[in-house]
Order: sequence, then C-alpha cells, then structure tokens
Amino acid sequence: MTPMAHSAQARQALSSLSGFPEWLPAGRVVEQQFIDILRRTFELHGFSGIQTRAVEPLTELTRKGESSKEVYLLSRLQGGPGEAGEADPAKQLGLHFDLTVPFARYVIDNAGILHFPFKRYQIQKVWRGERPQEGRFREFYQVDIDVVGDGSLPLHYDVEVPLIMHEALSALPIPAITIHVSNRKVAQGFYQSVGIEDDRLVEVLRVVDKLDKIGTDAVAVELVETVGITRAQAEAALGLATMTGTDPDQLRARVLSALDGAEPSALLLAGLDELESLLRVAARRRPGAIVADLKIARGLDYYTGTVYESFMAGHEDLGSVCSGGRYDSLASNGKRTFPGVGISIGLSRLLSRVMGAGLIEVTRAVPTAVLVAVTDEEHRAVSDAVADALRERGIAADVAPTAAKFGKQIRFADKRGIPFVWFPGAGTESDSVKDIRSGEQIDADPATWSPASEADLAPQILLAADPSSAAGA
Amino acid sequence: MTPMAHSAQARQALSSLSGFPEWLPAGRVVEQQFIDILRRTFELHGFSGIQTRAVEPLTELTRKGESSKEVYLLSRLQGGPGEAGEADPAKQLGLHFDLTVPFARYVIDNAGILHFPFKRYQIQKVWRGERPQEGRFREFYQVDIDVVGDGSLPLHYDVEVPLIMHEALSALPIPAITIHVSNRKVAQGFYQSVGIEDDRLVEVLRVVDKLDKIGTDAVAVELVETVGITRAQAEAALGLATMTGTDPDQLRARVLSALDGAEPSALLLAGLDELESLLRVAARRRPGAIVADLKIARGLDYYTGTVYESFMAGHEDLGSVCSGGRYDSLASNGKRTFPGVGISIGLSRLLSRVMGAGLIEVTRAVPTAVLVAVTDEEHRAVSDAVADALRERGIAADVAPTAAKFGKQIRFADKRGIPFVWFPGAGTESDSVKDIRSGEQIDADPATWSPASEADLAPQILLAADPSSAAGA
Repeated sequence: MTPMAHSAQARQALSSLSGFPEWLPAGRVVEQQFIDILRRTFELHGFSGIQTRAVEPLTELTRKGESSKEVYLLSRLQGGPGEAGEADPAKQLGLHFDLTVPFARYVIDNAGILHFPFKRYQIQKVWRGERPQEGRFREFYQVDIDVVGDGSLPLHYDVEVPLIMHEALSALPIPAITIHVSNRKVAQGFYQSVGIEDDRLVEVLRVVDKLDKIGTDAVAVELVETVGITRAQAEAALGLATMTGTDPDQLRARVLSALDGAEPSALLLAGLDELESLLRVAARRRPGAIVADLKIARGLDYYTGTVYESFMAGHEDLGSVCSGGRYDSLASNGKRTFPGVGISIGLSRLLSRVMGAGLIEVTRAVPTAVLVAVTDEEHRAVSDAVADALRERGIAADVAPTAAKFGKQIRFADKRGIPFVWFPGAGTESDSVKDIRSGEQIDADPATWSPASEADLAPQILLAADPSSAAGA
Repeated sequence: MTPMAHSAQARQALSSLSGFPEWLPAGRVVEQQFIDILRRTFELHGFSGIQTRAVEPLTELTRKGESSKEVYLLSRLQGGPGEAGEADPAKQLGLHFDLTVPFARYVIDNAGILHFPFKRYQIQKVWRGERPQEGRFREFYQVDIDVVGDGSLPLHYDVEVPLIMHEALSALPIPAITIHVSNRKVAQGFYQSVGIEDDRLVEVLRVVDKLDKIGTDAVAVELVETVGITRAQAEAALGLATMTGTDPDQLRARVLSALDGAEPSALLLAGLDELESLLRVAARRRPGAIVADLKIARGLDYYTGTVYESFMAGHEDLGSVCSGGRYDSLASNGKRTFPGVGISIGLSRLLSRVMGAGLIEVTRAVPTAVLVAVTDEEHRAVSDAVADALRERGIAADVAPTAAKFGKQIRFADKRGIPFVWFPGAGTESDSVKDIRSGEQIDADPATWSPASEADLAPQILLAADPSSAAGA
C-alpha cells in the first residue's frame, strides 16, 4: 500500500455525529505526533503540562457573558428529586469551551501552592454547543501556553510566548506560519489621540476587528453610523489598520504621521514602546516569525496589551490558526491579581485543513515495523519470541494472527503499510526478513537486526510535495 | 526542595468540585509519564491508538441497560425551541462512561475501512454521573486495549492481551500486579454439570461475583433462597470459586473431582481447554503474571469466555485495578459480528492510590533541567542564547524572570526542584553551571555541557522505598 493511500485515509475525519470529528487510525497517528511535537517544544522551554477537569460550574463559564451561548450543560440521566442542586445555577455544571477560563480558575484554586511566574501548557479537548447547521466543530483539541505572574509579569514574556509557539509550529510538517501582532494600547491610544472619546475606544476596536469579515466600506459605515465617530476619525482608524511591518522605527513614524499633527496620547506612546521592544527581540531571535499588523484587535476578548493572530502560508482563508494576547488580569481573587500572556492553537481545525487538503502523507497507520510470520500454529511460540526480542530493542512488532499461507501473511502486512515481514527459520535454517516494498530479503537475527533506515521504525508524516496530486490518491 | 516535598505535592489531588480530580503540576508529571509508558508498550506490540468523540447518542449509551444511571446528558444552554431534537431520545447526547461502548460503535462505523483483526489502544477520560455523596470519581482516565476480529478471533489473543497489559503495568513504578483469570465457560459449564438449569447459569454467576463484597454465607443464602438452586449445588458453586492456581492439569483435576462423579458438560470441557491453553502460554512467556482464580466472574458485564481482574500487591483492598474479558460479539451490525477481547485500567483510581499512599516520589514538578540566570536586563539576550543552545541539544531550560540578585534566582530554581543554575560569564570570563543540590560549580559551554546523570534531564518518578516515611514529608 502506498503512502498516498494512507494519506487518503488520514484525511478522512468521520462525522457520524455532526460537529464531533473522529479520525481513522492514520489520522490519529498525525494528531498524536502533532501533539507530541508541540508538547516537546513547550517542555524544552520549561512549561509544565497541566490538565483541568472537563467541567466547570456554569457561573464560572458565563462570568464573561458572551460565550454563554456556546456552553453544553450537564445533567444526570437518573438525577432524582432528592438530590439537590441542578436547578440551582450555582451548582449547574457545563463543559469548558476553552482552556483559559479553567486555567484562570486553577490559578486561583492553587494560588497558595503554585510558583509564579507559572508557565503552563495545556492540551485538551473543549466543547462548544454550536448550532448543528453551522457545520462547526462542537468538540475539538485546543493547545494553549500561558505565563502567569503574581501581581506583575515582565514584558519579555510578550515576545517569548509567540516565539515559543512559532518554534513549536515550525517543527510540524505544515506550511509556514507567521504570527501577526498588535497592541491594544497602540490602537486605543491612537483613537484617543485623534479625539475619539474613551468610552468608545473598545467599541471602535470591535468594529475594526470585523475588517476581514465585512470589508473596509462596511466598517467605515458602522463606525460613523453606529459608533458615532466622525468620518475623519473613522478614516484615521482604518488607516492605522492598514499598517504592517517588522521595523519598529518605520512603524512608529507611520503611526505618528497618521495623527496628522495631533498629539500622541501617553497610552499610544506606551503601546509603541511595547510593540517596539517585542519586534526587536523577535527580529533577533526568529527572523520572519513575527510581523506587526495593526488591524489585529481580538475584539471579542479581554486583552489589555499585546495581541496575536497567526496565518498559514497559502491558507490565509482559514483565518487565524493560533491567537492570544496579554491580560492585565487573567485571574483575580480579590486580594491578588494575576496578569498573564498566552496563545492558543485550535488544533483540530488546523489538522482538519492540512489533512483535508492533502498537505501531508503518513507512511502507515499502525506503529508496527515488523510482522513476524507464523509457520504453523504449533510454532507460534517461535514467532512470539522473535517479536519479543525485537520489541526489547524498541522495534514495534506484531505476530501474524493465523498460520495462513505466507502470501496471505505478506498481504496482511501490505494492507497495513507494515514495511517488513520476518520469517523464522525452520530447524538449523537462519531467520530472514523481507522488505516488502523492495522485495529484498536477507538473513537476520532478532537480537541484532535493525531496519537500515531509522525512519522505518515509526510512521512518518511528510509534507506532500504536490498536494494536488496527493489529493487524487 | 527535596524529592519528598514534591512527592507531597504530587499526592495532592484537588477537589474543588467533588468527583472531578485535578492534579497539581507534580501529579500531572506522574500521570503523563504513566500514560507515555503504557502507550509505548502498546505501540511496541502493534496496537493503533485511537480516540473517539466524548459523546454518544443516548440510545447507544443505554443499549445494554444497566449503566444508564451513570450517564451525563448534554443540553445546549441556549438551545432554542426552533432547534429540534433534545426531547427526542434518539437525538439526545451523553458523555461516554467507558471506552468499550464507543469503540464498538467506531468498529461498526468503520467496518468497511479498518483491517481485522484490529488492535487498538485508547486512553481517554470518561464520565459517570455518580451520586455526589458516594465520593467516587465522576471524571477519570481509562486505558483500554482490545483486539477485535471480523467473524472470528483466534484464541491466542486471550492470553496476549493480558500479557501485554501486564508488561505495560510492570514498566510503571508501582507495586507488582497479578492478573487473575477465569473463563465463564468453566463456571457455567460446571454449574450445568451439577444440574443447575441453563436459564439460571448467568444469575448464579452474578451472585457468586458478590463473594468479595458480601462473603460466602450471604452468597450461599442468596443462591438458595433467591436463585432457587439446591444447597448442594450452591456448595459446589462456592467450592469452584475457591480454586486458584497456575498449573492447568492440577486445576482441571480439582474441578472435575468437585463434580463428585457427575458428568462434565461439553461447555465445561471447552472452558477448561481454553483456560489450560492460556495458562500454558502465560507460564512460558511471563511467569508469575497470571494466575487462574475461578471466582472471577465479571457478573455485570457481557463476557462470554475468558475474564480478567487484576490486583496490586499490598493494595488488594482497592479491588481490581484492571479488568476485561472476551466478548463473542463486541459489536454487530446485523450482517457481521465482531468478537473481541480486551482489558481496561482505571488509571485515575490507580494513580490516586499510588500518589495518595505516598508510594512514589517525583524529583521535580517542572520539565526544566537548567535555569539560566540573568546578570542584568540589558544582557537578557545572552541568557536567552544560552537557553536556546541547551534546548537545541534536548536540555529543557528556562531563563530567570527578572535580573534579581543571584541568591534570589537560585531560590527560584530551588523552589521548583530545577537541579542546575547557569551563570553566563561576563566579558572574556567563561560561563559556569552550578548543581544547586551539591553546590558544585564548574565552567561550562552551552554547546557541549550535559548533566553528568541523564536522569537529571527530566523529572524522575521513583517507587518510594518506605511509603510510611514519605507520607510524612
């Protein structure tokens, strides 16, 4: 079986229940390897992995209001009338719809035990009670990293967090990712400077955030007619949103000149300083990873400074694959405030695109490198011993299910993409192993043999050279 | 910070929501390493990892009736009246309460694509809507392996599945596990042979299954008074339940002699043959792993042959930590029947015991091996470069959050259990690295240095020599 055919299998996300994707084994190989690579990078940078429970009290999930429509509530099928609580909203439980809300709660729950700054990664499924007809995922993996401080959190984490995520994403077999950054202080400070009143700043930001969805003209109309700023102010805001670049000096000059003589507010200057410091470190540590893009607003979230969105080369239509930003208060328990900065990948959506578009191939759907043939059932123990000897040296092995004709046993391996079939020798005869791709067969000893190519030890994921041809496989 | 103190942290399962355990970072290190070790063993044996969606239609979850009380139902918080379905049980969704029901559904959904026999492992959380006051877990990890055939499945998998699970469990830093096996054909065939009618066989099995809970006398009473078998038959059934051993010939002789001259039924002889073949292979491949124990019945499940339960040395009070068996029909779609054999660990319960009882220690709660100190904020880039050089060679590194006094930076490492602190040299001075456990400090180059002990590269989990002393840490 060719890698192409496995790629076709990897592509298949099942949907016997709309919005709840499920992978065939080849697809799960890809998902698991993606998760392993991301995790490895985060751990190299000192992030602790945590998992939070899947459920939170409804009061926790709806604290910020806007996401309440997406919550799945739980009830016990056999919850009897004697068991209190489910009618009481304070005791009602729902599935988490992101990993930020549970992480903030975890920080508060454990504020006395955790060491700050606390760097954590979290890779878990989340659920959103979307309307079925929208065709969105209702269950999917999110991959989050955050750094959270106690009282304060140094600014250098604002650049470290996206650089680490970029390093992790660059280790995946996917097209290049660019992280676009802005800073809400720049946008809001700029709006202040052109005379927009403070109580309209967030609303302007939210409308500008719709640029990619509804276009410049519609945003301009909404800014003037709904938000109530002047046409000149709307044009200035839209002008700011066109600015991109990696040179902080040029960017600063363009922003200030767009003020058209107006005095820059203290907030604008603070934002430009933060953005400049981020861009300088990014250019030095990972050139090309990060670009300033002043239209990034994350309008629906509660960020207070740096914000991120990320785009995959050739797949900009997918929208941001990885987003985040800084919160002055990720969490607070009244006495202490915990600022944080984080970034999150919607992994299932990313995987669905790269597999659905045939961008990657997987060499096989099973971990097995060697199928040990069985000569006859009386000698199954001989084959078991060969397999155990291979496994002891880290070579994944399976033993044929029945002592069928060797041709049938080879087809068993071939159908699964297992590259090698091992034939135990009878009597004084030596064992031999056959590479069923090339047909080459050599004498071998299970205590010493290894595949010539280490890549044959585990399924390999490859970025397809030509997706359009792979798509036809 | 000593390993003991981290062990105390690892032990702490949080319960701000009853039944939904959450680990501190040290506990999650243990959980993740357990999962990694189990997965690695399963893959060496050629098992494919799959994940199924967390939800199933209620009709699927309640098909077998008895578990319906444990189901959590989902509803959309904002599900409007125009959106059909939630009152219709066929469209109602619930969280899966085990991994067998979803796996059976996955096999049917993909019967045309999967290759059989299909070997899969599955490590996911499951949910049970238990009554809160029972103090049971309502969310926990299960770890399942199953082999499923199309139409038939060779008997040798009945011994391979528990041996693989035993190999996986033996790789964990926990007390020894012994897998106890029986075969329902032996029990039911024996009951037949002593004259119990066929329509009472399953009921006898279910009552005998309560032996550990209610004791011999209560079981005898229930067998006679409720099930309605004779006192002599009840005594014979209880006598069978006392038989254990690893020698199949002795076991066969004891079972047959307990018939007291009655003719063994064909079912009993078939069961003894299956059990004998399992014990012979087990004794050869993993002596001591498996023992026959004829009281094992798995009364509430739908097994049809071999059944397994497993016990941890010194922790028999915990009950079975890993159970399973063979189904003649794991799944069926009307036209095809899929027999299966599998075994499942209740991982969260196992972890909760080994951590709660102080059986294991973890050397640190963070992946970080080296904290790179920062001399002053102007030179943070130097420290970043050291950390990147270490990471490139697989050494997890973090950089101090601020350029505090070195004493404070060392305490930062110490509190987290990070073993090494790296000091970048100023000017022409060489860098140096300090093992903060021993105090030893040596000159070092980030391009070549590695810790003397490879164990320092990642958190290590150790089986505590003396749990009672660790418990006091």
